[in-house]
Amino acid sequence: MRSEIELFIKKTSPSQFAKYIDHTILSPNADLTKIHNACKEALKYGFKAIVVPPIWVNHARHVVHEAVSVCTVVGFPLGYVPTGVKVRETEIAIESGANEVDMVMNISAFKSANYDYVFNDISSVATICKENNVILKVIVEAGLLSEEELRKACMLSERAGANYVKTSTGFGPRGASIRDIIIMKSVVSPNIGVKAAGGIRHAIDAVIMIIAGADRIGTSRGVEIIEEYKRLRESIG
Amino acid sequence: MRSEIELFIKKTSPSQFAKYIDHTILSPNADLTKIHNACKEALKYGFKAIVVPPIWVNHARHVVHEAVSVCTVVGFPLGYVPTGVKVRETEIAIESGANEVDMVMNISAFKSANYDYVFNDISSVATICKENNVILKVIVEAGLLSEEELRKACMLSERAGANYVKTSTGFGPRGASIRDIIIMKSVVSPNIGVKAAGGIRHAIDAVIMIIAGADRIGTSRGVEIIEEYKRLRESIG
Repeated sequence: MRSEIELFIKKTSPSQFAKYIDHTILSPNADLTKIHNACKEALKYGFKAIVVPPIWVNHARHVVHEAVSVCTVVGFPLGYVPTGVKVRETEIAIESGANEVDMVMNISAFKSANYDYVFNDISSVATICKENNVILKVIVEAGLLSEEELRKACMLSERAGANYVKTSTGFGPRGASIRDIIIMKSVVSPNIGVKAAGGIRHAIDAVIMIIAGADRIGTSRGVEIIEEYKRLRESIG
Repeated sequence: MRSEIELFIKKTSPSQFAKYIDHTILSPNADLTKIHNACKEALKYGFKAIVVPPIWVNHARHVVHEAVSVCTVVGFPLGYVPTGVKVRETEIAIESGANEVDMVMNISAFKSANYDYVFNDISSVATICKENNVILKVIVEAGLLSEEELRKACMLSERAGANYVKTSTGFGPRGASIRDIIIMKSVVSPNIGVKAAGGIRHAIDAVIMIIAGADRIGTSRGVEIIEEYKRLRESIG
């Protein structure tokens, strides 16, 4: 494991590493100044995406232009708004300039074994995303699922048209675990990615998630993580 | 204080006490069986309302008919979806049978001093509610506000057409405090109510909130609270 980590760090420059990171600011009380600063950080560090609350998508796009993907959330964080609401959220997000959408699966319908509803819920959003070349990530909230449920949720999300499956909202009972990533990666096809999110606070956490199979890392601590990554890389030499 | 509590308990029968309670089930992983059971409990105990996730409003209405108010949530729990989304949520909720709506104020816009946006956000939802004789409660998430902000949020909510101001979502940093209720009650007119929610786990908590000025109590522990209330009442004699 240790040699794998060192190898990854040696071969991955900080700017390449930044391309794994969705720099995320989703606190309900983050004001426009904080949102603006996070967008500036995303530009400066070259993060893959900036993830902002729906009402700030337009502002984020205005700050980062085409240099950084703008991502927002749909049905977030509880997942149980009706499909018609998720559709409207997605339409407004795309009109406002989002090119990525992280939607929460309807966990309550899933737990009620209403898989047709869950499938249609995702595919309704996926259809709009595809028509607009927008990337769709489906958050399954792994912390609320058994291993069997996690596998099923990922397979269902892929069939319904997700481009990524994502572990957690960051507002659930726990964040991403390495085990989540390994399970999720094992059930989806190579055509879709896995995003680890929730509780990823250090560079080494992010590196381990990537080695385990994560294609994206969602974190509110992108800047600290990159700075830490640079120091790690220097210490390895 | 003690005599005030005893006086309240003596003069308020369990069935009158139940009319203060919004019996609430909003966990993202509550399945239809749990929702169904909570609706049955609301019927049995005569709670004022049953509060369910948006996708289960129609089911709840089907269980409780006209005997109990059916309430759901809008912009919940983070408050930062655009107004157009909150409007769509409200329309679908009312079409599905809701006669009360608990919406979250746009805290992020409020913290950005964009009071016109916050006012318009609430009044857009309030207009639809009024047209349909639906009660609107605005959740200000007191745990994220200073005392000055809390006052301002309540006054703004009333001006924008709220029928109630409500302390908390139950998903924020903390639940209702007695201090919240006293502050909120002091700034709104007698025309609108105050709802305490979040962390109310015992009958005595609910009683104290009511004495402090709460007109409604939101709790997932309605049944335990009523049973406890009956024992309290017997012990007072």
